[in-house]
Amino acid sequence: MNKPIQSFSKLSANEKIKLITQQYFEDPQKAQALLSSYLLSNKSLQEIHSQFSENNLSNFVLPFSIAPNFLINQKTYCLPMVTEESSVVAAASHAAKFWFNRGGFTANVQNMIKKGQIHFTYNGNPNTIKKLFRQHKSALIHSTHEITHNMRMRGGGIQSVELIDNTKTLPNYFQLDIAFITGDAMGANFINTCLETMASTWESIYFQNSSLFPKDQKFEIIMSILSNYNPECTVSVHASCPIENLGLNLKDSERYAQKFVLACQIAVINKFRAVTHNKGILNGIDAVVIATGNDFRAIEASIHSYASKDGSYKSLSNASINRGIFHFEMTVPISIGTVGGVTTLHPMVRWGNELLGWPSAEELMKIIAASGLAQNFAAINSLITTGIQKGHMKMHLNNILNQLGATTHQKQKATNYFQNKKISVKDVETYLTTIDA
Amino acid sequence: MNKPIQSFSKLSANEKIKLITQQYFEDPQKAQALLSSYLLSNKSLQEIHSQFSENNLSNFVLPFSIAPNFLINQKTYCLPMVTEESSVVAAASHAAKFWFNRGGFTANVQNMIKKGQIHFTYNGNPNTIKKLFRQHKSALIHSTHEITHNMRMRGGGIQSVELIDNTKTLPNYFQLDIAFITGDAMGANFINTCLETMASTWESIYFQNSSLFPKDQKFEIIMSILSNYNPECTVSVHASCPIENLGLNLKDSERYAQKFVLACQIAVINKFRAVTHNKGILNGIDAVVIATGNDFRAIEASIHSYASKDGSYKSLSNASINRGIFHFEMTVPISIGTVGGVTTLHPMVRWGNELLGWPSAEELMKIIAASGLAQNFAAINSLITTGIQKGHMKMHLNNILNQLGATTHQKQKATNYFQNKKISVKDVETYLTTIDA
Repeated sequence: MNKPIQSFSKLSANEKIKLITQQYFEDPQKAQALLSSYLLSNKSLQEIHSQFSENNLSNFVLPFSIAPNFLINQKTYCLPMVTEESSVVAAASHAAKFWFNRGGFTANVQNMIKKGQIHFTYNGNPNTIKKLFRQHKSALIHSTHEITHNMRMRGGGIQSVELIDNTKTLPNYFQLDIAFITGDAMGANFINTCLETMASTWESIYFQNSSLFPKDQKFEIIMSILSNYNPECTVSVHASCPIENLGLNLKDSERYAQKFVLACQIAVINKFRAVTHNKGILNGIDAVVIATGNDFRAIEASIHSYASKDGSYKSLSNASINRGIFHFEMTVPISIGTVGGVTTLHPMVRWGNELLGWPSAEELMKIIAASGLAQNFAAINSLITTGIQKGHMKMHLNNILNQLGATTHQKQKATNYFQNKKISVKDVETYLTTIDA
Repeated sequence: MNKPIQSFSKLSANEKIKLITQQYFEDPQKAQALLSSYLLSNKSLQEIHSQFSENNLSNFVLPFSIAPNFLINQKTYCLPMVTEESSVVAAASHAAKFWFNRGGFTANVQNMIKKGQIHFTYNGNPNTIKKLFRQHKSALIHSTHEITHNMRMRGGGIQSVELIDNTKTLPNYFQLDIAFITGDAMGANFINTCLETMASTWESIYFQNSSLFPKDQKFEIIMSILSNYNPECTVSVHASCPIENLGLNLKDSERYAQKFVLACQIAVINKFRAVTHNKGILNGIDAVVIATGNDFRAIEASIHSYASKDGSYKSLSNASINRGIFHFEMTVPISIGTVGGVTTLHPMVRWGNELLGWPSAEELMKIIAASGLAQNFAAINSLITTGIQKGHMKMHLNNILNQLGATTHQKQKATNYFQNKKISVKDVETYLTTIDA
């Protein structure tokens, strides 16, 4: 067992790289060279990226791609997408174009309320603390006035503060539940700063009034933090068209629509399918969330927990047929921003936001939801027709052929050969040795 | 309303860039130049990355960082982490070092079974289809023999095939439920290829025996796909130490341990807190998942759906105090691979895997789980002591100062000035105008 490395974060990037490559790598020089080969030649641009995280050694590269032809609320968008998964961008593009010719996507934001909590314990009479809260509620809000000033100027800020008594579930446990509107910012830092300030005010209020309470009573702030559960920050999106516009003829179209509806019903009742169904939605959502500099872990947490809001974990999207109209829809919570944090600092994020026409947070919620529904449509479409492996393996084969340095001629031959075969690096390598370059 | 762009994917990257920047950007030349500035100077290296996704225009850069001093099952690791969130790597490093001196993390893999389903409908007597299944079960498995050959050589392959009757929930709906062991591969392509082959075999079996069924009976394969719900592919991790080793003295340590336990209990009973608590775990998990070339959407779906496995959505980790010992633990499903797909193709992923000593999938599950628990520990630790904004805003301020091109002198002054103040780009910019460079 080694000793821990001391003061590692204080070392320069080069010192860190030297120390680590010598300790862990067979060929330290080669390992160092690879890190260097990913650094940007523009030094000031590289400097921006090197400062995002502690112990940064180099850049990790994900493909930056675009999916054109997204018609959302009658406006045409080209979506920036960042994903390592082959076929996600292709699938989004196909679904977008399919719906472009059938009226596109329609999206609506229901509300944009974000929540934060101050969790605390108090072992006295609940009515006493409730009374104290009522008396000092406006002082609590007032203590954040300096922090919320700019947000209030833009129509946001604190919407409500409530005291919730949880003592029946956990002894002595209360919370202050605070609702925020954060405009075009995701608002995590804003909300957390407000909460920590209010928590400190709430503590002061209690101790300033401690003469009102018996000596043996205890009050303690446990923690203050925003919630990534956002059931009041939701966007709905749908696409619909007459059934006959789905396929080549009415009979095929009807069969297709029914199978599509059934695939969604299965994802409502079967958790093993629901999780994968929703994962497909998030393939589309996350790609745009990352490209626009938002926090995909927050989005994932919010959406997957929303999928179990009624007790059992279910599909987030649903399809129906009504009077000859096929309707595909979804409602999801999406808490994102178009200003502040990485959105302002990352040059490619700014590029993506310009590509989208500098959307507001509300507009971006709609765009992201449409990307998710498009991706879900493409996945279900493949699953109920050709199966997903066909498209997926085509991209995968392409990656392998490039890795192996195949010629254009070899690529063509291999693509034909592997059309209905299983694909692995080894199989492709073996095949390439059997054909001319 | 524009017409959709036709055959966009057939254009070269340069043609795509030209078309898109001219249509959407105020300064197309500048937009093109930014895309170019992110391309790698090594052309063959760039080629690898350009082929990962359709409609690829450039690279999206995330910080590649490391967190040293992870002691897991008595072995020391330095973790590769890819995350844009300031403070995640710093938090992981602090938690790792804290536990290094207290015995580190202990992790165990319970099982590595992954599931796939063939969903189908049949409108006849369930007993008839069950009988057909029993008679031909071995033929179903046999039809995948060529695909599973290599995996079986490595001790994996198909573990079981079951027919599940869901007709009480949804009329005519059955599924074949198939369990797989996929060795060191995540196995998505392998599983889906097996499933699509078995589905086609199952369909053939039905129609070859159709004379046994009344003419009006219908059988249809709806879809075949792996499940991202992985309750049988789980890893447990814990860290524990005598309470007195947690803090400076016994009294402080006891108070700290009790507050820590309470913070976890709150995350068990309160969904608004549970979602954020688990999001913090995934901050640590995803950073390693991405750095090792795995699919973070699959992991997110798997873990957040597992959090609601008992009906209500809950904290995945828990803390307890027993006979003077503080114990912090978590069990999560993690389906990842260390061979195949992006893990083999992405040079920085290979770098990360060498840094970890070329772990097996089982070992990597343990490493990823430890990263999640460490991150969770760091978050709770901050929340119940100083609050999270202190560390977070320090990193955020640093980013802003770099973006604004502040000098070392200005950085020092600004760091002091903003210690207890709210931070925004505008506030920092204004402050910098008031001090000398």
